[in-house]
Amino acid sequence: MTNTATRSLYEDYIKEMQTIADLRYASAVLQWDQETYLPPKGAPIRGQQIATLSEIAHKHFTDEKLGALLQELLAGDKLSADEKRNVELTWQDYSKQKKFPSSFVRTLAEAVNKSFHSWMEARKANDFSFFANDLARLIELKKQEADMLGYEHHPYNALLDDHDKGATVQLLDGVFSAIQQPLKELLGKIASQPVADDSFLRQHYNKDKQWQFGLQVVKELGYDMEAGRQDISEHPFTTNFNSKDVRITTRIDENDLSNMVWSCIHEAGHALYEQGLPLTEYGLPLGEPASYTIHESQSRLWENHVGRSRAFCERWLPVLQTYFPEQLGRVSLEQFYKGINKVEPSLIRTEADELTYHFHIMIRYELEKLLIGGAMNVKDIPGYWNEQYLTLMGVKVPGDKQGCLQDVHWSHGSFGYFPTYSLGSYYAAQFYSYANQSITDLNGLIKQGNTTPLLQWLRNAVHQKGRRFTSEELCKDICGETLNIEYFTGYLLGKYKDIYNF
Amino acid sequence: MTNTATRSLYEDYIKEMQTIADLRYASAVLQWDQETYLPPKGAPIRGQQIATLSEIAHKHFTDEKLGALLQELLAGDKLSADEKRNVELTWQDYSKQKKFPSSFVRTLAEAVNKSFHSWMEARKANDFSFFANDLARLIELKKQEADMLGYEHHPYNALLDDHDKGATVQLLDGVFSAIQQPLKELLGKIASQPVADDSFLRQHYNKDKQWQFGLQVVKELGYDMEAGRQDISEHPFTTNFNSKDVRITTRIDENDLSNMVWSCIHEAGHALYEQGLPLTEYGLPLGEPASYTIHESQSRLWENHVGRSRAFCERWLPVLQTYFPEQLGRVSLEQFYKGINKVEPSLIRTEADELTYHFHIMIRYELEKLLIGGAMNVKDIPGYWNEQYLTLMGVKVPGDKQGCLQDVHWSHGSFGYFPTYSLGSYYAAQFYSYANQSITDLNGLIKQGNTTPLLQWLRNAVHQKGRRFTSEELCKDICGETLNIEYFTGYLLGKYKDIYNF
Repeated sequence: MTNTATRSLYEDYIKEMQTIADLRYASAVLQWDQETYLPPKGAPIRGQQIATLSEIAHKHFTDEKLGALLQELLAGDKLSADEKRNVELTWQDYSKQKKFPSSFVRTLAEAVNKSFHSWMEARKANDFSFFANDLARLIELKKQEADMLGYEHHPYNALLDDHDKGATVQLLDGVFSAIQQPLKELLGKIASQPVADDSFLRQHYNKDKQWQFGLQVVKELGYDMEAGRQDISEHPFTTNFNSKDVRITTRIDENDLSNMVWSCIHEAGHALYEQGLPLTEYGLPLGEPASYTIHESQSRLWENHVGRSRAFCERWLPVLQTYFPEQLGRVSLEQFYKGINKVEPSLIRTEADELTYHFHIMIRYELEKLLIGGAMNVKDIPGYWNEQYLTLMGVKVPGDKQGCLQDVHWSHGSFGYFPTYSLGSYYAAQFYSYANQSITDLNGLIKQGNTTPLLQWLRNAVHQKGRRFTSEELCKDICGETLNIEYFTGYLLGKYKDIYNF
Repeated sequence: MTNTATRSLYEDYIKEMQTIADLRYASAVLQWDQETYLPPKGAPIRGQQIATLSEIAHKHFTDEKLGALLQELLAGDKLSADEKRNVELTWQDYSKQKKFPSSFVRTLAEAVNKSFHSWMEARKANDFSFFANDLARLIELKKQEADMLGYEHHPYNALLDDHDKGATVQLLDGVFSAIQQPLKELLGKIASQPVADDSFLRQHYNKDKQWQFGLQVVKELGYDMEAGRQDISEHPFTTNFNSKDVRITTRIDENDLSNMVWSCIHEAGHALYEQGLPLTEYGLPLGEPASYTIHESQSRLWENHVGRSRAFCERWLPVLQTYFPEQLGRVSLEQFYKGINKVEPSLIRTEADELTYHFHIMIRYELEKLLIGGAMNVKDIPGYWNEQYLTLMGVKVPGDKQGCLQDVHWSHGSFGYFPTYSLGSYYAAQFYSYANQSITDLNGLIKQGNTTPLLQWLRNAVHQKGRRFTSEELCKDICGETLNIEYFTGYLLGKYKDIYNF
């Protein structure tokens, strides 16, 4: 194939991929609107509109003409390395999507929409049974999806792979079994010490001032408000419609400052990743994030390694004190730092500390394996859940709303997603350790409110690479080794030794 | 064809039409977002995303399969009258759209996006020349559009027909030449009387309170906030994504109360129409408004016949006085009524009174005829504009921003739209006169804040009929006669005689 012919084919490829991206991001706008501004009576038809866009995007992406185009490009030899990688990754995605009939995609989208609403009803009623039938239907569809995708060893592998290419039950079983004991031991040591006092976080904090403070923080961290915005939603999330329009949401609890602050930083971490993806690759794999896991590594890195560090407290406590002199005027740096890092087994995943968080994930991971493997019935979820919370963390679940109904994910049909939260944390510790080695006096910089060098390091190490590598490949590219959980356990041990003096 | 076969075909028809509606309304959500919440750097790709959705919707709508389906349905005899009307109207639309190649639709959408941005720049610079090239390009495309559509007598007829089926240069020339003299005479009589005092409107009015008041008004008029919402945008507009999600926007000028109040009522008038369309006909012609003209008849009816009536002032001035005691506490009902109905030639169309408004439209109408007819160059627009404002209204235009750049319409590629504003006013007067005859003591009801009977009358007379009739057919259906401008001139004469005592 001549160079000119290759150019022309590659242009066609970009055009078609951008059309598909336009459809998918349009759907994302409709979903963002649904979570933020949609009037209640508009919900049913909105669900239909989103399903239609998904179906049309899927039809475009699985069109035989695109397949032929990809084949032709792959057969040639005139593409640059980046272009070749784009086409290869698209071919992988294409081959995967070809396994789903369009009707299945629509059925799934509609089932998700239905079960999202029944999940909300079930939460309102604090009764899992309202959600059980729709969830069972969704799990049935996810099993079908796993069968269509194909897998080795366990059907759950197909769904894991979808969130983090290459992640398997074998990998996760290994990671979780290796980490469970050290975390338990650490938790035991902490439990033998006096409980940290975080009561200062649970006073009345004015909504508008919280909102202002959250914005000030995310802006200073480098979130570009000209290429994004923050809104209120019931569950904080980040979404993007291209790298110049990356939106975050938060929620504000007037009686708990921590809810807003670290969710803002968490979502900003996601958003900084999206804003750092190359716009020139809009619609192409190299313009996309590497995986859900790597996405989470970015949010966790900012939320925990930066946002819960002593240096960060030194930068922001004085500012917080000017916003809330009555509530925080007499709280010392040490009190604040210890309070925001309090470790205590709890009910709600999103409010959990950095240590016990992973028990929340392990429970969900085991549950998902059982459900997708067909080894558990949906009706048995609440019983299993409550028992596991008691066994692993000694926590008694008072009702489904604070138990197995607390997360939106299953209602979205997201199975295989939760484990990426833990993996993300482990990669975050590893990446941060390397960043810390590369950047002179990173702590000092954070103390001064200068996180630009860190952001720049992440831009180079992670963001600008798009989807070029899998999580493990990226880790190796950055650190010279694949995932090593000792970075994470070492980080926690060091931090809590210091805080709890053992 | 058997009944069962017809049912099945009609179901296919509905499914395809709803898919197209989903695409079009998704595009409308993206546009709404663009006008309200889009971060500035997101604009370029947003334009591309909207263009892609337009193109795909157009491809679906002009698919030969849909044409064949429509033909088959039209050949049968088992459809109900409503179903038949849906199919007939769709066939008309289909035949029209088939005249445009998809590439033309995309070219037009992209040209619109480009010229919208250059229009904004030109406004900022107060210099038409920044907009001239993109506008010239758009006019070229609109001429091509007219040629593709076909027309008799004047290419502008093709564009008028697109906004109001059956409207022609002949009709409008007749209407405007008949109305111009009576309006001029009326203006002369008013000008010979003491000028009404509306200075109380131009004090400082707190933004939040204005916002609250506007919401209270539109809710009482019957706008369902569970099926809609209000936001801020630079130019107030109404948009809808189905009849259960109809959104309005407003703008608030802290130094001019009138800006917000009557634009809220105006947009609520549009929104009440959309909320009154039958949801069961989602995606089908009978679920759509009759025409731009009839749409405007609804907004004008609420804005002027209700919102600028003495009865309305009796209902709302006391409420306004509780919001703004300092500014309005000493303004009497008569002062208020006269002030909000002050007649005075002015520069800005959207701020014009009910009488001189139509001179603004006549100028734009003549201009559009000249431009689309090829009898005027784009570069000559400012000169013509300024000269006409001086001749018709004695108003000197200080710059393009307050002159030929004041309206967004041309930058949207909307030619043939402005005349529907005047026609809408004339129909509004005619409809309102009939409503007034049908509803016992309509004025007394408005005074009490009870506009439910009026809304119900409009629901029955106009809203629920969807696109069944053209503007003129609908008028005949409601009033037993087609457009008769004497309702409008009679209404104005009665009103201003009373206010100006001549």
